[in-house]
Amino acid sequence: MPSADALQARRGFASDNAATVHPRVLEAIAEANTGHCFSYGHDPYTQSVEARFEELLGEGTRTFFVFNGSAANVLCLRAACRPWEAAICADIAHLNTDEGGAPERIGGIKLLTVPTRDGKLTIDALGGLADREIDEHSVHPRVLSITQSSELGTVYTITELRELAAFAHQRGLLLHVDGARLANAAASLAVPLAEITTGAGVDLLSFGGTKNGILAGEAVVVLPGAATTVTGLEYLRKQTLQLASKMRFLAAQFDALLTDELWRANAQQANAMAARLAAAVAPAAGLQITRPVQANVVFATLPAAASEALQRQFDFYIWNEAIGEARWMCAWDTTEEDVDEFAAAVVEECARNER
Amino acid sequence: MPSADALQARRGFASDNAATVHPRVLEAIAEANTGHCFSYGHDPYTQSVEARFEELLGEGTRTFFVFNGSAANVLCLRAACRPWEAAICADIAHLNTDEGGAPERIGGIKLLTVPTRDGKLTIDALGGLADREIDEHSVHPRVLSITQSSELGTVYTITELRELAAFAHQRGLLLHVDGARLANAAASLAVPLAEITTGAGVDLLSFGGTKNGILAGEAVVVLPGAATTVTGLEYLRKQTLQLASKMRFLAAQFDALLTDELWRANAQQANAMAARLAAAVAPAAGLQITRPVQANVVFATLPAAASEALQRQFDFYIWNEAIGEARWMCAWDTTEEDVDEFAAAVVEECARNER
Amino acid sequence: MPSADALQARRGFASDNAATVHPRVLEAIAEANTGHCFSYGHDPYTQSVEARFEELLGEGTRTFFVFNGSAANVLCLRAACRPWEAAICADIAHLNTDEGGAPERIGGIKLLTVPTRDGKLTIDALGGLADREIDEHSVHPRVLSITQSSELGTVYTITELRELAAFAHQRGLLLHVDGARLANAAASLAVPLAEITTGAGVDLLSFGGTKNGILAGEAVVVLPGAATTVTGLEYLRKQTLQLASKMRFLAAQFDALLTDELWRANAQQANAMAARLAAAVAPAAGLQITRPVQANVVFATLPAAASEALQRQFDFYIWNEAIGEARWMCAWDTTEEDVDEFAAAVVEECARNER
Amino acid sequence: MPSADALQARRGFASDNAATVHPRVLEAIAEANTGHCFSYGHDPYTQSVEARFEELLGEGTRTFFVFNGSAANVLCLRAACRPWEAAICADIAHLNTDEGGAPERIGGIKLLTVPTRDGKLTIDALGGLADREIDEHSVHPRVLSITQSSELGTVYTITELRELAAFAHQRGLLLHVDGARLANAAASLAVPLAEITTGAGVDLLSFGGTKNGILAGEAVVVLPGAATTVTGLEYLRKQTLQLASKMRFLAAQFDALLTDELWRANAQQANAMAARLAAAVAPAAGLQITRPVQANVVFATLPAAASEALQRQFDFYIWNEAIGEARWMCAWDTTEEDVDEFAAAVVEECARNER
Repeated sequence: MPSADALQARRGFASDNAATVHPRVLEAIAEANTGHCFSYGHDPYTQSVEARFEELLGEGTRTFFVFNGSAANVLCLRAACRPWEAAICADIAHLNTDEGGAPERIGGIKLLTVPTRDGKLTIDALGGLADREIDEHSVHPRVLSITQSSELGTVYTITELRELAAFAHQRGLLLHVDGARLANAAASLAVPLAEITTGAGVDLLSFGGTKNGILAGEAVVVLPGAATTVTGLEYLRKQTLQLASKMRFLAAQFDALLTDELWRANAQQANAMAARLAAAVAPAAGLQITRPVQANVVFATLPAAASEALQRQFDFYIWNEAIGEARWMCAWDTTEEDVDEFAAAVVEECARNER
Repeated sequence: MPSADALQARRGFASDNAATVHPRVLEAIAEANTGHCFSYGHDPYTQSVEARFEELLGEGTRTFFVFNGSAANVLCLRAACRPWEAAICADIAHLNTDEGGAPERIGGIKLLTVPTRDGKLTIDALGGLADREIDEHSVHPRVLSITQSSELGTVYTITELRELAAFAHQRGLLLHVDGARLANAAASLAVPLAEITTGAGVDLLSFGGTKNGILAGEAVVVLPGAATTVTGLEYLRKQTLQLASKMRFLAAQFDALLTDELWRANAQQANAMAARLAAAVAPAAGLQITRPVQANVVFATLPAAASEALQRQFDFYIWNEAIGEARWMCAWDTTEEDVDEFAAAVVEECARNER
Repeated sequence: MPSADALQARRGFASDNAATVHPRVLEAIAEANTGHCFSYGHDPYTQSVEARFEELLGEGTRTFFVFNGSAANVLCLRAACRPWEAAICADIAHLNTDEGGAPERIGGIKLLTVPTRDGKLTIDALGGLADREIDEHSVHPRVLSITQSSELGTVYTITELRELAAFAHQRGLLLHVDGARLANAAASLAVPLAEITTGAGVDLLSFGGTKNGILAGEAVVVLPGAATTVTGLEYLRKQTLQLASKMRFLAAQFDALLTDELWRANAQQANAMAARLAAAVAPAAGLQITRPVQANVVFATLPAAASEALQRQFDFYIWNEAIGEARWMCAWDTTEEDVDEFAAAVVEECARNER
Repeated sequence: MPSADALQARRGFASDNAATVHPRVLEAIAEANTGHCFSYGHDPYTQSVEARFEELLGEGTRTFFVFNGSAANVLCLRAACRPWEAAICADIAHLNTDEGGAPERIGGIKLLTVPTRDGKLTIDALGGLADREIDEHSVHPRVLSITQSSELGTVYTITELRELAAFAHQRGLLLHVDGARLANAAASLAVPLAEITTGAGVDLLSFGGTKNGILAGEAVVVLPGAATTVTGLEYLRKQTLQLASKMRFLAAQFDALLTDELWRANAQQANAMAARLAAAVAPAAGLQITRPVQANVVFATLPAAASEALQRQFDFYIWNEAIGEARWMCAWDTTEEDVDEFAAAVVEECARNER
C-alpha cells in the first residue's frame, strides 16, 4: 500500500470516478459475504436485486450486471444491432470519444455522429440521418443513443425524451440511454427513475453505479418495450467478458444503491455541490460558466494562469484547451467544505490573475 | 436482499467461485476508501501494487488488473497475436470450452486444440501442430496456452513448464499460463510464484484472484521475457472493456492477497481440503477417484443414485454425465467440518446404493 | 506477360484451381459485354441467372454471387449464426484448415471440429457435440457444415445427406454444404443438383464455380428450407467485401455453367480422369491408393524417391508428409493424354525405385 | 441470359461501374488461358505483373491483387492499424459512407471523419484531430485516407498531396489513397502514376481497375516508403477473403491496363466526356454545375421536373435529394454521341421546365 504521503487526502474535482465508495455499499458487500452460493448470477442475491429493478422500472424489465460503463454501452449495442446496423449518437458522446474504439473493434458497430449545441442530441440535428434510404452500401441505423445526464452536465427533460423515443420508434430504432449519471438526471428533474426510462419510451439502459458511490458495477437494463426484440443478453454478456463469477457482490452493491433511494441522495449531494460551486465561482474575475449547470458538473472558462495555479493545488481536467475551459466534477462525497475551499481558491486565483 | 431462508448457508463443492471473500481483502478495500484519487489506475494504490508484482516476478514485469479470468485470457491473446496468428491449447482448456466464444468473436483468434490425458498439454500431444509450414492458407501459431493448475486439478512441474517454454521459444511462440488457480499450483509444488512463471520461461500470465479469496479481479501479467514483444496492453485493456475506473479497489484486493502470502495460505487450505476429501471418500463403495489430486479439486465416478442423493443435499457439478464423474471443488474457505460432513454423506450414499 | 519459357505449358495435378477457364465461360462474358447496365447486381443478367438457380433448386431459392469459396463459406456462417453461435465441421474441412482464420477473425465464429475416417462427417463422430446443454459459458452449435465432395475426394450419398439434415434439423441446426466441388459430387452420383441439396434437406450452400471451369466466382445459395430463417445476405455480402460492381460478369459465368449442364460435363471429365489415373497407377510397385476415388482426386502413398522424381516433372502436392501420401487432382481440362503420360511416369518411377 | 428487350443497350451516366470491359482486357484474359499454373498468385503471370507495378511505382513496391475496391480499402486499413488505431477520412469518403460498415465490422477500425468543402481533405479541416493527446480512452490516428480523384470529381494536386504526406509523416501517420479513380486523376493532371503516389509521399494505395475498364479487380499497393512498416499483407489478403485462386486472370487484366498506358487512354476518354458534358449542359435553363469538373463526373442542380423526365430516359443518380443535385458519371466507353444525346436532352428538359 502507498505511504500516507503518497495519498491525495483531499477530494478534488477531477471526476466522480475519483470518489470513494459509500459506506452502505461496503456494508452490503460484507452482508452478502456468508456461505457459498452458485456463481455467475445463479444466486439469491442477484435474483432478488434483478427483481428490484423489475419493480422499479416495470414488469418485464431484465437486468444484467456488468463491470463498467464502457462494457454496458457496448453490450447494449451488441444486443440491439445486427452486423449491418449502426448507432447514432452525439459526436461528444462517451460512446464515440472515450471507449477506446470498443464499439467498432469489439462490437463491430459503426457510430453515426451528430454535433450538438449543449451535449443533448436533437431531432433537428439528426437531419436525415435516421431517414436515409436503406441499401446494401451503407449501414442501417438501429439505435439512437443519448447520454443522460450528458457529458456536458445537461439533462434531457421528460418531454425531450418522449419526443426522441417517438421519433426513434417511428423509424424502427431503439432508444438507448447511457445512464452513467442517470441518477444525477433523475435527481435534477426530481422524478422517479421509471419516468425518465420506461415511462419516456427508453428501450435500453446503461444504468450507472460506479459514478454514484459503488465500488464497481453498472447494469444493462432491457426495458419492457424492448423485451421481445432485444434478446440473447445472457450469452452476449459472457462473451463480452462481463459475466462476474461472484455476482452476488455486484448485486449487493446495487441493492444498497436502491435501498431507501441511496442513489438519489448521492446524486442530490453531487448536484447540489455543483450548483454551490457554480454560484460561488460565478463572480470570479474573468471566469465564465459555459454550460447550464443541471447535474453534477460545472464547466467554466478562466484565465490560463489561474487554471494552472489551481491545478497545482486541486485535481481537475481542462476540457477544452483551445478556449481554456475547465471541467469541475462533483461526486457523492464532495462536501460543502470541499466546494467552499475550492471556490475560494478559484476566486482568489482569478483575482490574482487580473491584478 | 434475499430472505435468510433463500440463502444457502452451507459451503458446498460446486466451485471456488462460489466461495466468500477473505476478510483481509474486504479490510484492504475499506482502507483504500479514503479521499479522491485519479481513476483508471493513475493512483498510488495501483502503482504500488503493480510494483509489488514486479518485485515478486522480476524486473520489467508489467501488471494490468482486469475484472475476470475470461477477460485476462482474451486480453493476453489479443496482445500476443497479430490477426493471422493463433493459440494452441488443450481441448478441455477453459479458453476453449468456457469463454462463450470470446477468443474468436472478441479476439478474432483461432484456437488450435490438442487432446490431453490428464488436462496437461504435452509436447508429444502437439504433434506437428507448432511446426507446420507457414503459408497464407492457415493461421500461424503464436501462443502456447496452458492452465496451471489445470481444469482437471493436475499441476505442471517446473521441469514440464521449462520444457514447454523451451519448445515454444524455439518456434517463436509465447508461453501463456491461464493461472486462474496459479496459487493452488504454487502451493501444491511448495515453490515461489516466480519459479513457476518467470523462472520457468513463462511469457504471459493470467493471474487469478477471484478463485483465491478476492471479490473480483484478475491480473494480466507480462513477464520480463515478453517485455519487448508484447506491447499496447494499456490500450487493449481499455478496448477489451476491462479498464476499471476506481482501479484502486482492484489493486487493494491484490495487495491483500500478496501481503504475508495470503494467496498461499488460501490455496494451501483449499488444496488440503481436497486431499482430505479424496482420502475420506476413497473407500466408498463403487467410488473411484479418477484424476490425480494435486490441487483443490477431486474428480470421482460414483453410482448415479448416490450422486443424485448427494446433489439434493450439497452443491456440486457432474463433470462427465456419460461416466457419472462428479467434480468436487474446494475453496479457501472450505473447512475440515465441511469436508468431513460431505465425505460422510458420500460414503453413506454409496453404501446405501450398494445395499 | 511472362515469356513463353516461364510458362508451364503442361497440365499438372496440383489442383483444379490451376486449370484454365472453359471457352464457353469466356464467350458468355464477351456476350454480356455490351452497353451499360446497373452495377451491384441490379442488372438483367444477374437477375436472370438468379432465376435459373431458383428453377434448378426450388422456389424460394435465393442466390448471391461472390468472388471465391472462402468468402462463400464465411458468408454462409455469418448469415446463419448469431454472435454466440458456432459451426460444427470436420477437422480436415477447408473451413477449418484453409481459410486463413477468416471464420474466426472475419466472422467471429468458433468452429467445433470432429475427426473423420474418410473426410465425411458422421453422426456417430459428432458424439454429444450437437446435444450439449446450452448455457452462457459455451457457444451454441447452429450450423453443421460438410464438404461435398469432401477434401478427401469422397462423396456423401443422398441417404447420408438426408440423415445429417434430419439430425441437424431436430436440434435446430442448419445444414451447410461447402460445395466447392458440388458438381463433382452430383456427377459422381449421377443425380440432379437439386437432389443433393434442396431435396436432401440442405439449408445453405456454397456453390462452387472456380474449380469447375469458370474464371472466378462462387454462389451463396439459401435453399428454400432456410428462406425465412437466413436473412440479410444482401447486406452481409456487401459488408463481407463480396459485392461485385460489374456483377453481370459473375452472373454470365454461371449462366454458361448452367447452360446444357456444362457444370456436369466438366465434372464428369475431371472425375473420369481421376478414375482413369487411379486404375493406371494401381499396379505400380509400392504404391497404395489410400482413399476411395469417388470424385476428381486420387490419394496414394508411394516411395519418397518416386514422389520426388515425379515432382520434378509434374506439379502436385504431398498431402501427408509423414506417410508419403500424394494428392493428384484432376480438372475439367485434364485429358486422357495428360493422365496416361503421368500414370506412365508414376509406374516407371515406382519401378525404378524398387530396382 | 436476359432477352434483348430486357437489356439496356444505351450507355448511361449512372456509374463508371456500369460500363463494359475493354476488349484488350478480355484478350489478355484469353491469352493467359492456356495450360495449368499454380494458383493463388504463385504463377508467372502474377509475378510478372507485380514486377510491372514495381517498375512503375518504384523499387520495393509490393502489389496484392484483390477483387474489389471496398476490399482494397479495408485491407489497407487492416494492414496499417493495430487494434487501437484509427483512420481519418473525409465524411463523404466512400470508406465512410459506402462500405457497408466493413471498416468497422470486418476491420474493427474506427473512422474519424472531417467535413470537406469540395471532397478534398485539407490540413485545416483536420483541426487538432491528428494531434490529440494519446491515451487509453481514445483511438490513436494511424492512417490519413484520401480519395483521388475524390467522390466529388475533384483532384488533389501534387503539391496538396505532398503537404498531406508531410503532415501525416510528421505525426507518425501513413497516407492512404483510395485510388478507385486514380487513373482519372493522373490523366487530369497529365502526370505519371508515380508522381501522384510514390513521388508525393503516398504510403498505401488502393489502385482501381474496375472503374477503368477491367472486369473485376483492384490492387493493394504498398509503396516503398511503407515497405518496412506495413507487413503481413499476404496473410491478411487471404483472411480478408480476397485471395483469388486463379490469380493469373486478375493479373492479366492489370497487364492489359498497364500496357501502352491503356489506363490513361481510358481515363482520358472518361474525363474528356465529362468536360464535354459539362460544357454542353452549362447553358441549360435553371441548371447549375455545382463542383469543379476535374475528372470524369459532372454534378449539377437542375429543376426536379427536368431530372425526373431525364431519369425516365437515361440512367443516373440523384446525389443530393435536398437540393436536387444530380451526378452524371462518364466511363471509359462513354462516347461523344452518348454525351451529345444526353446533353441535348438535358437542355431540352430544362427548357421545357421553364416554359
